[in-house]
Amino acid sequence: MAENGSRADNGKYQPICKGGGLLLAWQLKGKRVLLVGGGPVAAGRLVNVKDADAHLTVLAPRSGLCSEMKFRIFEQKVVDAYEDRLFEGDSDLAGFDMVLTAIDDADLSRRICQMCRARRIPVNVADVPPECDFYFGSLIRRGPLQVLVSTGGKGPRIAAQTRRIIERAIPENLGEAIERVGVLRALLRKQAPEQKVGARRMAWMIDVCETWSFDELANMTEADMRAILAGWEKGTVPSARRVRGIKHMVPRAEDVRKRITGRCPVAGYCTPWLGGIGGFVLGAAVASAILLTRKTAR
Amino acid sequence: MAENGSRADNGKYQPICKGGGLLLAWQLKGKRVLLVGGGPVAAGRLVNVKDADAHLTVLAPRSGLCSEMKFRIFEQKVVDAYEDRLFEGDSDLAGFDMVLTAIDDADLSRRICQMCRARRIPVNVADVPPECDFYFGSLIRRGPLQVLVSTGGKGPRIAAQTRRIIERAIPENLGEAIERVGVLRALLRKQAPEQKVGARRMAWMIDVCETWSFDELANMTEADMRAILAGWEKGTVPSARRVRGIKHMVPRAEDVRKRITGRCPVAGYCTPWLGGIGGFVLGAAVASAILLTRKTAR
Repeated sequence: MAENGSRADNGKYQPICKGGGLLLAWQLKGKRVLLVGGGPVAAGRLVNVKDADAHLTVLAPRSGLCSEMKFRIFEQKVVDAYEDRLFEGDSDLAGFDMVLTAIDDADLSRRICQMCRARRIPVNVADVPPECDFYFGSLIRRGPLQVLVSTGGKGPRIAAQTRRIIERAIPENLGEAIERVGVLRALLRKQAPEQKVGARRMAWMIDVCETWSFDELANMTEADMRAILAGWEKGTVPSARRVRGIKHMVPRAEDVRKRITGRCPVAGYCTPWLGGIGGFVLGAAVASAILLTRKTAR
Repeated sequence: MAENGSRADNGKYQPICKGGGLLLAWQLKGKRVLLVGGGPVAAGRLVNVKDADAHLTVLAPRSGLCSEMKFRIFEQKVVDAYEDRLFEGDSDLAGFDMVLTAIDDADLSRRICQMCRARRIPVNVADVPPECDFYFGSLIRRGPLQVLVSTGGKGPRIAAQTRRIIERAIPENLGEAIERVGVLRALLRKQAPEQKVGARRMAWMIDVCETWSFDELANMTEADMRAILAGWEKGTVPSARRVRGIKHMVPRAEDVRKRITGRCPVAGYCTPWLGGIGGFVLGAAVASAILLTRKTAR
């Protein structure tokens, strides 16, 4: 899989690992997306696209809408434009920045794909890889945190299994921590907006993320942020302990991770050996006490 | 963050969570990518693009190439076309399917972005979000497995921290397991190529992935695959135990995960209580033995 150069030099740099896709976060805010189809696959695409703030048009006869599509269009009203009809031709594509199809008609899908390519509109035809400029994958979402798991079509099931493993590993409050860091970052930009301090801003924000644990970041209040920002001029980052004036620290991110993945930070020392030794001492003491008491009693 | 409908119905379906990007695996095989720039950021882009099998042109004066770029272009020779000059104008963009710039000249970057948009070429200007049709993120690669972590620019550091947490959670042999599943899947397609059995093929492959653990899949030999494929006609999936005729099963994926994330499957029962009880009994026994021996001796 890996393509390696012939020079010793090579070890210094990441190897090229061919055969992948280019994993991206496509920006759809203010962009227009056309979704052709009204079944469950189309409903999944709809969520992906609306999660990314696109202006969405759905083209599908009402008679063929699945229950989720009906809900999204008529109850939740998250679809910006709905057209109750079949795809008619090239003019249906005018003005769109991305086209997704999820219909059973393979011939029509192929024609839509060709029309999109002629117009240089990125297109995805569900379940037909050669007619896709991009693939979807298994997704995890926690507020601003997004994770994509892709196996390049080699194993959709194993991608879902991997997604579950990753889901369990992500600390529960991480989405909230990222959200709060985003707020702090925006406040810092207001306080020190000059472009020339861009690198210093970045370095200081890194300090904050390394000084405060995920738990602490997730619970960062406006007052906390003001106290942290007071350190900007001097280039210092006060700890959560200092800012909050509390005795018992909220656990560090590392500890939280370990707790979540089930390993106690001192697990190597305390279990089961420490338990064993403690038990041994206690057992010896109890047995001795009983025997000595009996002896004395006699 | 979440946009909820007003109906009780809503609970049935995934909420829309606005403010994200559309996470995708862009397909670059056979596509032409132009990379403008020769510094370390450009070198990172180069790896991303060549990992995805694109035809890559680099445009940057030789005098400004960083050491990694020099290595990739002249030693490793992974760049398909290198032009030792500055960007000259619109005609430089002809024929490209994607353009990435990573240069210090903000004005030139903006102009390149505008030209790309006029030509409907997807473009990314490093560090200038409004001039990006797509963002990059933190990546994990294990053979065919690719994972993208994105915080939508809210916290690059926290994205890298998240990537490390995820990296540690992914079983080591998962990439290999996916690779082998891909080979089995291709063999199955040869054996049963008819389109009408597509759904059955998918269901049977899911059975394989659920019957065999990641470890077993990762070590699946050609002989194993032939034995598994013998079950296709009857719609059965023989276990690794049956196929390999071994007594001691290779551990199941779940166990491997637990081992990797540090939780023993019986951790709740055996540590530290079991150690403590064992120690208590042993301690009592030893103390009793000593005291009783002394008593007998007297």
